Amino acid sequence: MKYVYFFGAGKAEGDGQMKEILGGKGAGLAEMTRIGLPVPAGFTISTECCDYYLQHKQTYPKSLAADVKKNLARLEKVTGKKLGDAKDPLLVSVRSGSARSMPGMMETILNLGLNSKSVEALARNSKNDRFAWDAYRRFVQMYSTVVIGLSKEELEEKLRAMKTRRGVKDDTQVPADGWRELVGEYKEHFKKKTGKEFPEDPEEQLWGAIGAVFGSWMAEKAVTYRRVERITGLLGTAVNVVQMVFGNLGETSGTGVCFTRDPSTGGKTFYGDFLINAQGEDVVAGIRTPMHLDEMAKHMPKVYPQLEKVRKLLEKHYRDMQDMEFTVEEGTLYMLQTRVGKRTPAATFQIAVDMANEGLITKEEAIDRIKEEDIDRLFFPIVDPSVPKGDLAKRKIASGINAVPGAAYGKAVFTAEEAEAMAAKGEKVILIRRETSPEDVGGMFVAQGIVTATGGKTSHAAVVARGWGKCCIVGCENLDVEYESKVAHANGKTIREGDWVTLDGNEGIVYEGQVKLISPELPKAFSTLMGWADKVRKIGVRTNADTPHDAVKAREMGAEGIGLTRTEHMFFKDFEFPEKSVERQLAIQEMIIAETQAARRKALDKLLPYQRRDFSGIFKAMDGFPVTIRLIDPPLHEFVPHDIEKQQELARKIGVDVEVVIRRVEQLHEANPMLGHRGCRLAITYPEILEMQVRAILEAAVECKKKGIKVIPEIMIPLAMDRKELKLLVDATNRVAQRVIQETKVKVEYLVGTMIEIPRAALLADEIAEVAEFFSFGTNDLTQMTMGLSRDDAGRFLPDYVDEKKAGIFANDPFQTLDEKGVGMLIRMGIEKGRKTRPKLKIGICGEHGGDAASVKFCHRVGMNYVSASPFRVPVARLAAAQAVIEEKAKKGKKK
Amino acid sequence: MKYVYFFGAGKAEGDGQMKEILGGKGAGLAEMTRIGLPVPAGFTISTECCDYYLQHKQTYPKSLAADVKKNLARLEKVTGKKLGDAKDPLLVSVRSGSARSMPGMMETILNLGLNSKSVEALARNSKNDRFAWDAYRRFVQMYSTVVIGLSKEELEEKLRAMKTRRGVKDDTQVPADGWRELVGEYKEHFKKKTGKEFPEDPEEQLWGAIGAVFGSWMAEKAVTYRRVERITGLLGTAVNVVQMVFGNLGETSGTGVCFTRDPSTGGKTFYGDFLINAQGEDVVAGIRTPMHLDEMAKHMPKVYPQLEKVRKLLEKHYRDMQDMEFTVEEGTLYMLQTRVGKRTPAATFQIAVDMANEGLITKEEAIDRIKEEDIDRLFFPIVDPSVPKGDLAKRKIASGINAVPGAAYGKAVFTAEEAEAMAAKGEKVILIRRETSPEDVGGMFVAQGIVTATGGKTSHAAVVARGWGKCCIVGCENLDVEYESKVAHANGKTIREGDWVTLDGNEGIVYEGQVKLISPELPKAFSTLMGWADKVRKIGVRTNADTPHDAVKAREMGAEGIGLTRTEHMFFKDFEFPEKSVERQLAIQEMIIAETQAARRKALDKLLPYQRRDFSGIFKAMDGFPVTIRLIDPPLHEFVPHDIEKQQELARKIGVDVEVVIRRVEQLHEANPMLGHRGCRLAITYPEILEMQVRAILEAAVECKKKGIKVIPEIMIPLAMDRKELKLLVDATNRVAQRVIQETKVKVEYLVGTMIEIPRAALLADEIAEVAEFFSFGTNDLTQMTMGLSRDDAGRFLPDYVDEKKAGIFANDPFQTLDEKGVGMLIRMGIEKGRKTRPKLKIGICGEHGGDAASVKFCHRVGMNYVSASPFRVPVARLAAAQAVIEEKAKKGKKK
Repeated sequence: MKYVYFFGAGKAEGDGQMKEILGGKGAGLAEMTRIGLPVPAGFTISTECCDYYLQHKQTYPKSLAADVKKNLARLEKVTGKKLGDAKDPLLVSVRSGSARSMPGMMETILNLGLNSKSVEALARNSKNDRFAWDAYRRFVQMYSTVVIGLSKEELEEKLRAMKTRRGVKDDTQVPADGWRELVGEYKEHFKKKTGKEFPEDPEEQLWGAIGAVFGSWMAEKAVTYRRVERITGLLGTAVNVVQMVFGNLGETSGTGVCFTRDPSTGGKTFYGDFLINAQGEDVVAGIRTPMHLDEMAKHMPKVYPQLEKVRKLLEKHYRDMQDMEFTVEEGTLYMLQTRVGKRTPAATFQIAVDMANEGLITKEEAIDRIKEEDIDRLFFPIVDPSVPKGDLAKRKIASGINAVPGAAYGKAVFTAEEAEAMAAKGEKVILIRRETSPEDVGGMFVAQGIVTATGGKTSHAAVVARGWGKCCIVGCENLDVEYESKVAHANGKTIREGDWVTLDGNEGIVYEGQVKLISPELPKAFSTLMGWADKVRKIGVRTNADTPHDAVKAREMGAEGIGLTRTEHMFFKDFEFPEKSVERQLAIQEMIIAETQAARRKALDKLLPYQRRDFSGIFKAMDGFPVTIRLIDPPLHEFVPHDIEKQQELARKIGVDVEVVIRRVEQLHEANPMLGHRGCRLAITYPEILEMQVRAILEAAVECKKKGIKVIPEIMIPLAMDRKELKLLVDATNRVAQRVIQETKVKVEYLVGTMIEIPRAALLADEIAEVAEFFSFGTNDLTQMTMGLSRDDAGRFLPDYVDEKKAGIFANDPFQTLDEKGVGMLIRMGIEKGRKTRPKLKIGICGEHGGDAASVKFCHRVGMNYVSASPFRVPVARLAAAQAVIEEKAKKGKKK
Repeated sequence: MKYVYFFGAGKAEGDGQMKEILGGKGAGLAEMTRIGLPVPAGFTISTECCDYYLQHKQTYPKSLAADVKKNLARLEKVTGKKLGDAKDPLLVSVRSGSARSMPGMMETILNLGLNSKSVEALARNSKNDRFAWDAYRRFVQMYSTVVIGLSKEELEEKLRAMKTRRGVKDDTQVPADGWRELVGEYKEHFKKKTGKEFPEDPEEQLWGAIGAVFGSWMAEKAVTYRRVERITGLLGTAVNVVQMVFGNLGETSGTGVCFTRDPSTGGKTFYGDFLINAQGEDVVAGIRTPMHLDEMAKHMPKVYPQLEKVRKLLEKHYRDMQDMEFTVEEGTLYMLQTRVGKRTPAATFQIAVDMANEGLITKEEAIDRIKEEDIDRLFFPIVDPSVPKGDLAKRKIASGINAVPGAAYGKAVFTAEEAEAMAAKGEKVILIRRETSPEDVGGMFVAQGIVTATGGKTSHAAVVARGWGKCCIVGCENLDVEYESKVAHANGKTIREGDWVTLDGNEGIVYEGQVKLISPELPKAFSTLMGWADKVRKIGVRTNADTPHDAVKAREMGAEGIGLTRTEHMFFKDFEFPEKSVERQLAIQEMIIAETQAARRKALDKLLPYQRRDFSGIFKAMDGFPVTIRLIDPPLHEFVPHDIEKQQELARKIGVDVEVVIRRVEQLHEANPMLGHRGCRLAITYPEILEMQVRAILEAAVECKKKGIKVIPEIMIPLAMDRKELKLLVDATNRVAQRVIQETKVKVEYLVGTMIEIPRAALLADEIAEVAEFFSFGTNDLTQMTMGLSRDDAGRFLPDYVDEKKAGIFANDPFQTLDEKGVGMLIRMGIEKGRKTRPKLKIGICGEHGGDAASVKFCHRVGMNYVSASPFRVPVARLAAAQAVIEEKAKKGKKK
């Protein structure tokens, strides 16, 4: 087993492809060496060795000692120096480096090889006492803290004390003697704390450093970082042992960090910082203010063009924007590291588009480089990064799940009614609820943002807010909301109605007061790249939209139709004439309370014109694109009031005894409403509801057709589980539709299809397809039932299932990213069986997963015709759909 | 298309196999004719003709008129008489007859062919004026009511008036003249009501009668009967036109109904009733008291031996007990009808066993003749059939779903506590609740019967009661239960606590007061036949039992192990020492309220000895048979009190602030508890619960082994959905088990398996089987999730789905009889995939379906190792398992 890889003098055993084994840094150094860049020589101990080390109680493979010895000898030969040598000592840095960047998470030791003898040699050879003793004290400090674990603060305290004694302020003012004195103090401290002398033997130093780097892989902060960033499947960190070069040998030396393009805007400018007479950590530490690269160009006119050359070479070689570290040692440039540079979402688009236009990458590669979150973050306001962290910490009230990104502030309100009332006065409000229900939709709509104490990323609040791209934080478990007194408590703070609060939906944090927000702008490159994606993708992208407003928004986002219009929100909210909402609510409630079919029909007749107008508006907005309208889905109890005052009010308004209302509400209560009397089951019991809705759809279509608007309504029956059940309802739908067509003498083409959201429907899709003209997978419910998970309740335990540190059963929350293994199996079966009966069956998805990149790719792979996502997720779906095609090609290419 | 089938003079066009087309009666007459019995001649118009009639707006096939004419001519030839003839008229009966017996549901017209001329001929020829005019008035009466639909009561009124006028009491005392007078009045009435003369033309009469019989198929009462009896797939009724023979021609004539064996006991005695000088309807009407057959033997010494001969011939021919109708016309025996006789459950067993012993049928046929409900009804008390119906009607309070058969009375109580308190004083109680929850189990256990206002056949109340074979009526929707005032209202009656009520669980009716009940005895033939079944069946039969008491009961019922022990009931009820129940409840509640793992462990430590004793008791009772113990399954909120008084009490007892209790209870509330934090998800969050339970199981096993009792514990982890999830828990289980084995140095063999009750688990059964040593399909939950049906809520709409008159989507309630198509598909997949990984994987079922005959047969067909049923359903499972083998053989036989 080869554990150590050498690089130096233009040759390298590893290369840039070997990230998994050499880590990003090691692979980069090997690759840079190979392509002829000036790179200090060294060797990399592989991540496989780290894995061995961690698996074997922190011991090394047997061969390692000999390998390190051999490579060290080779390094000494290449550099012409010897580790610990009293005449011309070799100094090395020992750095961690994993396959995926984990900035600041693991350890580095510089200037290793210095001891009481070699420091003198270094002083002699550099003719710089001060430099040598500064280097030595840096090494002793790092070794003491990183390898041995002594307190950094205590050492810093000694440094401060020494400077105070000497009356100097900056490190640069400390004379050689000061550093020498400090080294002595450090060593004394070391002995006091460890009972041992500070190691003189450079090999002992080296092994200590290697162990420290390996060990840092499992340090709490590193483990947490990987968990948060969802970094899994890595073996460990590599250790890079590299010849030290010094940027702090005077005015002809220096060190810098640079990006081949501007990481903020993506602009084609060479972007970076340079510090004269400094070591790398000085740049990172941010104590001295570095110069920009153009200043450096003036200061080092010979070196800068070399760096420019490297920049071009690297971009050409790596075909991506690079983030490089370099050092200039007495006028000689050394490249220390290169990696793909992090960038803002706007820069991501700009760089991808520019590079494709430059011919550096293909358009497909450009598409492939955009990530889901790059799009997410483009659209939403954010907390101004210039707001001091301390200020934020002081303002923090509660934290929860960042259900919908973005940021917003407004005055706190605790009821939907109050939200509407205050919004009507022009106030910005934040709606804070324990949880939300369809009754709250009006208030949610007018709010700047929504906070709930309960629920997960797919709770009612999250789903509705996501549809509107409205900042939303759910599951703030420490937030104690008291409706009666209209206050919320958390973190020792109290929010009263009317108090300003700010939501950071990116982080899931609620702040008190108004925190400064900024709104990013959509870069031009965004629409360029999305246009490219549209040309590549094969699967359609529709949107979930319940209002003309949403429909328009979704069209702007590139939606090619509506995959899901939920009609139930319309029962509560008149989006065009909000003042008419009350009439709608009353009509639906009257219908529910009614005890005879005749009374129900009477109430439904009142709703008909409203629904017709709703549909008409959506048809107009989609102007010829298909519109899928789902018939009423939620259980009726969601539409009736549950508190006695409102029940009394309702009874009075519809002219029945309050007991009738109470009894009916009680009757409607269900133990498990998710699996209860809802979806098409309502239409089996109350066919008149279906009849009203179908009539409204058809009449709206007729109205539009008469105005010359093209309309393609797709009537979708939810929650079907059986062919016979669906047939009854499809027949009823066609009866009403034909009646409207006969009455109006306007021919309307329409489809009648169903949602596949009950496992049984997927299992029996061949039969279902006999009567359904299209399928739309309702993956929210299909996930709930296939996995036996209530999405409203799963917050109690699902986090444990996803948390790697706890059970770690699932890689992702199955309500965010489709569970391909289980739920996906049913989807595959459903598609296969459905198309067996009806080969051209149109199949889509309208669950939340339609806006999740990984899930969209799955939908492409299994052969769906389209996905449907909430308006703000439409671009993600468009991109992912294109990436799916590209991935498929790549896979096929590999097979060949 | 042949629509008419002739029989007579020893020959018949049809035969006994043609029930579907000729109806039971027609096929019987044809068959009896063929085997040489004395049968009056006639012809049968087929059910296919009825189907045509109903499908074609009550018109007949074109060919029918000619066919009827031809067959009528043939009949006239065979009998030597002519319909409507003025000299020797042929009289016929016109009767309905469907493929399945629907007694009293459809229509009959006798003496057709009489008119003002032929009645005179009949009088002449029979030398019996009175007989002829009586026959004529019977015909006019039947024709008027059955064919024309005139009021029966009005005609009866005229009959009564005539008798009053003549000062006679019984019909037999009416002279010829009286009947003639009445015929006149009837005809006048007919004209007044219809505007037409009563038809003289016999062919018009005949067609009127045919139409009436066909039409009666869709009469409300017939449709209802078929729905209730689940009779589906029939074409309609046949019409039998048969030569009239008269039992009312004097002392040498008569009519009778008899069974070839005693339908009550199954005894081998010829059993029947005979009326001298009477027509068949007189026997059925029950106005005159008939003589028993042995009296008839004395009265008609020549005819009786012929009847005895017929009896033997019929049993030999039909190989089953027959129910026959016959008439003796002036000393000549005519067989009018034969069919398989209805019998009591006890007789069903007796006859099957006797016939097998007699060699008339095989043992397998004997097994195959027992139906699920024959067993059901064997075990339970019933309302004494001698209680007058009127008395019952007056006592009726409410009706609901007959969840568990049987009957019981007791004093009404409305809380489980009160039930326990009163039962402790030796009172019989009936527990009446809106719904039940695990907290009520103690009270349910001591009650004689249970009534709930809500819920369906698989609600908590129904499932628990069924397990104990305890009479239970659920879903009494009109029952208004007021807990506070301790009363229930329904049907204008009020039940107060302490009032006597009687439940008829067979019919689902609640009566006020104490209604007389009788307890059927288990016939010896039962155990004989069940023994035969056990030899035939291949699949094991276990039981669902939670207590030693249930386990003993189940062993008596023939269970070969326990397939499901639910441990949650044990948390509420100490079945051995009821007074200790409170301690258990407190411990589990303390565990739930605890805020740290340490506190939870402390509470669990208190539960450990109880659980150990529970398991030990069950192991003892099963004495070497395998015992499957399911770890805690229900969501924790089911274990905590929801009303403030009890919460305060709990807080006081466990020494925490009541706010802590309230908050915890609120936290535990779930929107959809079925899909929530329950099953093995509890063990993922709280591994200490699993650890306590596994320890209790293993320590109990050790205890038993030390006493020399063989123990095979099978530890079952509920609600698994993923291999990784299950592996975590299997590993934890094994760790604890091995620890106990090491501590005690007693080796215990045990298995660790899982329930397959989430669709995903079935879909991924191959992976699950890598870590599970057995599967038990939890088909209650699997049905809920696969079909998206909450069994607690489905009562709202599922009846519509099963109701043929409404949607009629499912043939059966899927919670009673497994949905083979959908849920069954997942089960097949689960078994196939599971055995692919682990070929000898032990697989069972422990849902309610394990006690349903059709579902047990499915389990056999898909290759399960065993089914598990509640104790009282064990015999049903044993029988069905045997029948499955027999059906399989028959199928294979057919294929060959």
